[in-house]
Amino acid sequence: MKVLVANLGSTSFKYRLFDMDSETQLARGGIDRIGSSESSCSVQIGDWKEDVTAHVPDHAVAVRKCLSQLTDAEHGCLKDAAEVSAIGFKAVHGGRVSGVQRVNDDVLSAMAEMNDVAPAHNPPYIAAMRLLSEQLPEIPLVAAFETGFHATIPDRMRYYGIPKSWSDEFLVKKWGFHGASHRYIATRSAELLGRDDLRVISCHLGGSSSICAIRNRQSAGISMGMSPQTGLPQNNRVGDFDPYVLPLLMDKTGMSLAEVLAYMGSHGGLLGLSNGLSGDMRDLEQAAAEGNADAQLALDMFTSEVRRYLGGMLVELGGADAIVFTGGIGENGKQLRRDVCANLQELGIELDEAKNDSAKGEASIHSANSKTQLWVIPTNEEIIVARQTKQLLEST
Amino acid sequence: MKVLVANLGSTSFKYRLFDMDSETQLARGGIDRIGSSESSCSVQIGDWKEDVTAHVPDHAVAVRKCLSQLTDAEHGCLKDAAEVSAIGFKAVHGGRVSGVQRVNDDVLSAMAEMNDVAPAHNPPYIAAMRLLSEQLPEIPLVAAFETGFHATIPDRMRYYGIPKSWSDEFLVKKWGFHGASHRYIATRSAELLGRDDLRVISCHLGGSSSICAIRNRQSAGISMGMSPQTGLPQNNRVGDFDPYVLPLLMDKTGMSLAEVLAYMGSHGGLLGLSNGLSGDMRDLEQAAAEGNADAQLALDMFTSEVRRYLGGMLVELGGADAIVFTGGIGENGKQLRRDVCANLQELGIELDEAKNDSAKGEASIHSANSKTQLWVIPTNEEIIVARQTKQLLEST
Repeated sequence: MKVLVANLGSTSFKYRLFDMDSETQLARGGIDRIGSSESSCSVQIGDWKEDVTAHVPDHAVAVRKCLSQLTDAEHGCLKDAAEVSAIGFKAVHGGRVSGVQRVNDDVLSAMAEMNDVAPAHNPPYIAAMRLLSEQLPEIPLVAAFETGFHATIPDRMRYYGIPKSWSDEFLVKKWGFHGASHRYIATRSAELLGRDDLRVISCHLGGSSSICAIRNRQSAGISMGMSPQTGLPQNNRVGDFDPYVLPLLMDKTGMSLAEVLAYMGSHGGLLGLSNGLSGDMRDLEQAAAEGNADAQLALDMFTSEVRRYLGGMLVELGGADAIVFTGGIGENGKQLRRDVCANLQELGIELDEAKNDSAKGEASIHSANSKTQLWVIPTNEEIIVARQTKQLLEST
Repeated sequence: MKVLVANLGSTSFKYRLFDMDSETQLARGGIDRIGSSESSCSVQIGDWKEDVTAHVPDHAVAVRKCLSQLTDAEHGCLKDAAEVSAIGFKAVHGGRVSGVQRVNDDVLSAMAEMNDVAPAHNPPYIAAMRLLSEQLPEIPLVAAFETGFHATIPDRMRYYGIPKSWSDEFLVKKWGFHGASHRYIATRSAELLGRDDLRVISCHLGGSSSICAIRNRQSAGISMGMSPQTGLPQNNRVGDFDPYVLPLLMDKTGMSLAEVLAYMGSHGGLLGLSNGLSGDMRDLEQAAAEGNADAQLALDMFTSEVRRYLGGMLVELGGADAIVFTGGIGENGKQLRRDVCANLQELGIELDEAKNDSAKGEASIHSANSKTQLWVIPTNEEIIVARQTKQLLEST
């Protein structure tokens, strides 16, 4: 069975093609600047790479272009586009709909109900999925919701301190996200440590960041709440914030509630903390090294918030067998990992600085004295979505 | 020097009178149902108690009634009301004004600017302080702001992930509250443990709750943010919440933003989580023991949130020398203390169940194996306010 896993942006379509009988990646590629007159279409199959420019007006044409590259007579890895059993999507927020679902009108409606809550994520996915289901009805579409992995979080970690009827009737709970990534870390850390009965803290740190407590391979808590704007500060999204300040911000800025929320969700996070400098950790590290105090504040605040959630998860689990760093920052941010683990020897956590500095790919980075193992594990959200898609197809 | 410390509600005035030369409490009392035709006026001076009913239309009359009881010819502890050097207030939120201040128009204006942020706290204090300064101009009024103790929190723990210019221009930062209580715990724990260079986690748990990290007797972090509605769930206030859910709540309930915020700030917290049952821990424990699932959820959620913040502070401090429980729940909630400390042996924290059960007044409750000392310390916010008031008077 061959599954295409798609990662959508409002003007981009990135994909990987998997042969799920052997769990091997056959191809990867992407189409950028969808809707412009010159879209960039790239594909890599084995050692062969192609990068062409074409007019790709929408996501349906993008998928057709991708399938045509994958079935290229000379270099393609497919004989016929019909070999693709399904397209799997890492969908963000379905509210009343979670888990793994065939995309249909009800699933799209459920996602649309959460547009206000996940404004950066849901609308482009809904638009593209709707278009694909109309234009390419022959290919099944499967949505693997990011909330699915967190179904095991106990109620005491899921409810907010609002009237319980609001939580229950309007589904206002801590749903959590990054489920594919944390599920991958749960699976892979159990393989690496050789047992399932583990307490793992998975730190997915990247453009978007969250920290997940994992007990026996199941989610036991997550830093993100009802919306993906909460928890840690994100690259340009606010993170945890005090709702009682909104009237003051509306009064001071003259913005409406929707405008304040949109602004904090696009000009907040690392970008906002650094006074508009950058939401990219690498830019901030460079600027901080050159003495930029705002960049340093953004880095320090991010580190403190990671440590705050790390501590919460450590107490929730009663100690951790492993702490895993993943995501773009988690995998590459040596300095960030060092800062997060600083001064935690009393709690049984000690980084090996040399191992941390030389870590590439999967690597343990704890000292011999550390009771808690520390790991860098590159995440693989696409293989999780491909596995979930395969399971759904096989079970229906 | 004699200082009266006042605790104001919208229809109540509670006080303690201190002789600050010897730091002894001379009297305590209170007037309830201010504004009704039958206000209850009680006073206790040594062994003498009086409880009378009178018509007390406002807070100025309440203070006059209190002074008349304190100067009672037979039982009073004052010969003349002029012996009272000042009235000290535990004021909540002054925004741009913090620390310890003589109450004047500017201080009252600064507090009024924060009315939206601290709606349950600031308005009654402003009204009463304004009335007293008009009606009793002969008595100096001193405001000891709850935010003052937290001036030492580093910027990385103080900023939100919003545009930095908003934080700086509009003073939208994590100000923190319960400063008098956490300051008392910082002082008293240093006395009890015999040194100042301590890492203490102060858990003030009561009708209103917060957790403070204390390093070398200074605040290093606090669970409450810009407004006293944030952090732990409170008796009837929401605690941490996701602002991106507000449009959905407004849509579903038909309420305005102000109405949703007011409702979450008066029908949320333990009261909301227990589905309206009660915001009082004792009621919830009883209901939970009788099998009420909503009451159990409220207790469990509160415990989990205390543990989440405790963990964050533990990592911030790199371990703790002492964890202190104070406030009504912290001092009396045996079950809550047991639940908060459960399963933390790996992190060096172990409760002695017998000590915990028998704790009265100041008591250590850790086992011999516990690396972190655990204490119950009744708080004394009034003596802190009295000390601060005395210092201000002596320095000006």
